Amino acid sequence: MIQFVKKSCYILLFILTISCVSILSKTLKPDEPCKRIILYYHDILFNGTDLANATSAKVTNDTQLGSHFGMMVIFDDPMTEDGHLLSPPVARAQGFYFYDKKDTFNAWFAYTLTFNSSEYKGTLNIMGADPLPEKTRDLSVVGGTGDFFMARGIATFRTDDFQGDFYFRLQMDIKLYECYKT
Amino acid sequence: MIQFVKKSCYILLFILTISCVSILSKTLKPDEPCKRIILYYHDILFNGTDLANATSAKVTNDTQLGSHFGMMVIFDDPMTEDGHLLSPPVARAQGFYFYDKKDTFNAWFAYTLTFNSSEYKGTLNIMGADPLPEKTRDLSVVGGTGDFFMARGIATFRTDDFQGDFYFRLQMDIKLYECYKT
Amino acid sequence: MIQFVKKSCYILLFILTISCVSILSKTLKPDEPCKRIILYYHDILFNGTDLANATSAKVTNDTQLGSHFGMMVIFDDPMTEDGHLLSPPVARAQGFYFYDKKDTFNAWFAYTLTFNSSEYKGTLNIMGADPLPEKTRDLSVVGGTGDFFMARGIATFRTDDFQGDFYFRLQMDIKLYECYKT
Repeated sequence: MIQFVKKSCYILLFILTISCVSILSKTLKPDEPCKRIILYYHDILFNGTDLANATSAKVTNDTQLGSHFGMMVIFDDPMTEDGHLLSPPVARAQGFYFYDKKDTFNAWFAYTLTFNSSEYKGTLNIMGADPLPEKTRDLSVVGGTGDFFMARGIATFRTDDFQGDFYFRLQMDIKLYECYKT
Repeated sequence: MIQFVKKSCYILLFILTISCVSILSKTLKPDEPCKRIILYYHDILFNGTDLANATSAKVTNDTQLGSHFGMMVIFDDPMTEDGHLLSPPVARAQGFYFYDKKDTFNAWFAYTLTFNSSEYKGTLNIMGADPLPEKTRDLSVVGGTGDFFMARGIATFRTDDFQGDFYFRLQMDIKLYECYKT
Repeated sequence: MIQFVKKSCYILLFILTISCVSILSKTLKPDEPCKRIILYYHDILFNGTDLANATSAKVTNDTQLGSHFGMMVIFDDPMTEDGHLLSPPVARAQGFYFYDKKDTFNAWFAYTLTFNSSEYKGTLNIMGADPLPEKTRDLSVVGGTGDFFMARGIATFRTDDFQGDFYFRLQMDIKLYECYKT
């Protein structure tokens, strides 16, 4: 009988250990975000005349290094649920990007997604490199507020459209891996 | 007797499960920061002559989009415990902001709070949008060093004073939700 | 006998409680990163003629506040495993820095380390203050992608070489404290 009790206890201890170890080595899985939002980013760069439609403007000029190296753009861009520029925006993307490579187009972004819809209120803060030649590019969601209180995750960019120098559209596939109910 | 042992074991297993689930679904509560620091940020923009007092300077100009859209300011601003500009600073705020909206004043900040006092040594890194028309605005504390090793949290801005173009004061209510003793 | 069982159960409960409390109060130790990578950053600022070698360029000018206050540089810099500029780069550092102090050299960085080697593929996103007079400076690793999925940590800068205005080398000691196997 005592043998049986001891055995039971050992088994329980074993389960306990396994559970605790698995919790300690917390694993997040890229395929299993706790929240996912796919939005489209529309950037209409001010061309010197189109004041009404422009959503962004150049604040520093290209340097001599080429591929727009050194050109910085500040933006307040609409985010839509589909790829149509004129769909009602569900968020704004507010921040900046600049180009930083000599031999190809490579951008770097830091911005805030500001949600103020019936579905979400709050912000997500995002930064990272955007090497345009690659089909998809991953940036970091480094924090959030409001409905996204303390969130972290990955924002995957995919170029959806590119019309000359003054309009481009990115699909932003936002996957959060840390979600906290508030 | 064996029945009793089995029952005990089931109860223990149940407690174990509940505990582990509650740990896995870690909840952070906005009202329960592990640390809170309220400081005042004083920004004295260089006006072209007041070199002695200026703590910040414009590095890019307004674009034609209005509301200072495109104007970027780099700052090294004193942080005080009360709202008095001349109180001894307990930290410096070092970084930049820019304006990014056409029809109203909307800023975007990224900066480091550098503490070097008897109370704290270390830094907090902060970024996010600052839509001025709103009474309070939440930014993300995305990391920390020294006494704030690996911290994360929320910095809530409130405009405390605004004197024309060259002085403004923000209350920054910094709430950390991830604190690690070092 | 029943006494023994009860005792066993109490002991198990006690162990359970201790384990869970120790997990809840998760402690990260500065001396115990889950991953550590030491790399050297080489910045060759474009001097107006050296287009072939330059890896960075000035995009805003010094203000009158002194110590390069207001000067911003955008870079795409090679990262090597030793201090030799011509060693094969194992990553690129892409981002920007600017100077933000009147009376001494103080920089502020935000950038992405982009790895594309046999050893690592992915990015680390880093931001923070770089007060040059201090021997070592800690910045925050605020996120990662690819092999560094969801990483966080500290990047410690140490100036390794400084040759006038146009070349400097930093040792970046990158310590991650949150690592997730993907």
